[in-house]
Amino acid sequence: MAAPSYDVVGIGNAIVDVLARTDDALVQRQGLTKGTMALVDTARAEAIYAAMPAGVEKSGGSAANTVAGIASLGGRGAYIGKVRDDALGTVFAHDLKALGVRFDTKPATSGPPTARCLILVTPDAQRTMCTFLGACVDLGPEDIDEALVASASVTYLEGYLFDPPRAMEAFRKAASVAHKAGRQVSLSLSDPFCVDRHRAEFRDLVAAHVDVLFANEREICSLYETKHFELAAEAVRGHCDVAVLTRSERGSNVVTKTDMLHVAPATVARVIDTTGAGDLYAAGFLYGLTHGRDLATCGRLGSLCAAEIIAHVGARPETSLQRLAVGAGLI
Amino acid sequence: MAAPSYDVVGIGNAIVDVLARTDDALVQRQGLTKGTMALVDTARAEAIYAAMPAGVEKSGGSAANTVAGIASLGGRGAYIGKVRDDALGTVFAHDLKALGVRFDTKPATSGPPTARCLILVTPDAQRTMCTFLGACVDLGPEDIDEALVASASVTYLEGYLFDPPRAMEAFRKAASVAHKAGRQVSLSLSDPFCVDRHRAEFRDLVAAHVDVLFANEREICSLYETKHFELAAEAVRGHCDVAVLTRSERGSNVVTKTDMLHVAPATVARVIDTTGAGDLYAAGFLYGLTHGRDLATCGRLGSLCAAEIIAHVGARPETSLQRLAVGAGLI
Repeated sequence: MAAPSYDVVGIGNAIVDVLARTDDALVQRQGLTKGTMALVDTARAEAIYAAMPAGVEKSGGSAANTVAGIASLGGRGAYIGKVRDDALGTVFAHDLKALGVRFDTKPATSGPPTARCLILVTPDAQRTMCTFLGACVDLGPEDIDEALVASASVTYLEGYLFDPPRAMEAFRKAASVAHKAGRQVSLSLSDPFCVDRHRAEFRDLVAAHVDVLFANEREICSLYETKHFELAAEAVRGHCDVAVLTRSERGSNVVTKTDMLHVAPATVARVIDTTGAGDLYAAGFLYGLTHGRDLATCGRLGSLCAAEIIAHVGARPETSLQRLAVGAGLI
Repeated sequence: MAAPSYDVVGIGNAIVDVLARTDDALVQRQGLTKGTMALVDTARAEAIYAAMPAGVEKSGGSAANTVAGIASLGGRGAYIGKVRDDALGTVFAHDLKALGVRFDTKPATSGPPTARCLILVTPDAQRTMCTFLGACVDLGPEDIDEALVASASVTYLEGYLFDPPRAMEAFRKAASVAHKAGRQVSLSLSDPFCVDRHRAEFRDLVAAHVDVLFANEREICSLYETKHFELAAEAVRGHCDVAVLTRSERGSNVVTKTDMLHVAPATVARVIDTTGAGDLYAAGFLYGLTHGRDLATCGRLGSLCAAEIIAHVGARPETSLQRLAVGAGLI
């Protein structure tokens, strides 16, 4: 097996975020469920946008945020995802490449515009997301660069990819290519409602193809249809090599076939916006994993990266994660 | 004369900012002059963008930032400027309307895309700007809503408008409509190089049409071709009712036919990004002026608003300026 050229290749919905601070009333008036992601069509996206305060645009996308985090840690990241050849698509590509992330999926030249996600950040720092999938619906197996996937230690898939119609095929193809090349496959469950929409496929995928699973408490409980975190953590054990279960201010648990580690959360002076917390936790954890760190250190790296991202608005690091991690004695 | 419906109508280049923190080396390598604005064509914009780190997109435009500030202070703002009917144009319009600013200039349906400004923020918090004028070149006198201009206490024009070819006509038309309606005309010189490019027209305009002039030290010195601030301040006296001359950490001077007031700068814990400092100073000053405050209070309001904007990245307020101004006992 050749030495990997990349630590992580992320595959996901290529999205530009539109972030605005709002009150709880707007989330309620729009019939949204706080802390979750809802898919919206053009008309609904326009209606919600019209009701939103002035915002800021920032490249996002769950798996893209994760590989941005890998790059900020000094790791080698690559990304596969679909934008349109428009202004926001250019912004998305620029922001990844500027971090040193390889990104050469062909942009769509017709069809819907680059995807955007309207993110309402409430005073409690929670984020509620409305995603217009746009050009993401065009991602298909033909976009999976087999040589690229085979050259990455970990292929990281976001669960949100179950929503666009043909991405699932891309998903399975990438997992299969990665395993054939002797690499690892990682999956994030992304969102409890996303798990609801695709529970059977998620369970099948986790059991058959996933080596490292990321989920928060609500997502893992949704996957196994239980209200009790402990039962869900027991249910996932053995279905994949490592299940990393994040629990916000209660830290995280790393579940293996034989063990369950608890990782304390990193301290944050003031939580401003939780957008990207899970994405950056995954970045820290996967950086550790692909650099031979033990699982406890991987978890602490995840917590450290999540702590950076929730201290400001937006889901891309504003500080060098490498410097933070070196300062914390973790790398 | 009917009571005004608006405090300030701003006319300017409608621009979305792309802000990124960079080192000084990038500014030098790109041959840019720190702290100024350069006009760039598509090819140059693409080259600079390719060299820039990952950024954040935020609505900008000098006069638009000023009316956004007026709205944040609780005032009534309106705006005239040209975007294209594209994604960034939608963002620009949304962000103004979300603040309660009236903006109904017809977007261009063909031609270049919505303007953007690449802003390099160096570690000393200075901003260096590269503007691609895009759809702004289509602004012309036909876009000046005469009834709107006549209904605003102050028509505020940014000097940057001298750059696109037909905006000058729009500029003169607006000034003439405002004066016929018994309103005031205000102008910001915007940038020392912009003054260099159009010195004769600026001097003519200031002497003939401007009631309230805003300029920083470099701009007013450029206008009167002197290296000495005091000489420039003497030169402008009498050419307009009020000349407001800002001097960064040295505060500002308000020059009238008979007086010269000094206004101390407001304190800022840490200067992060000076983008929009002049725009927001003008917002505070004009809010005071249109609400019957004395010139010293107008200046203090200007300093307060400038202090808010330089404490974070981006040229639109992140805090309610009204709350700040009430807290400071200024309104």
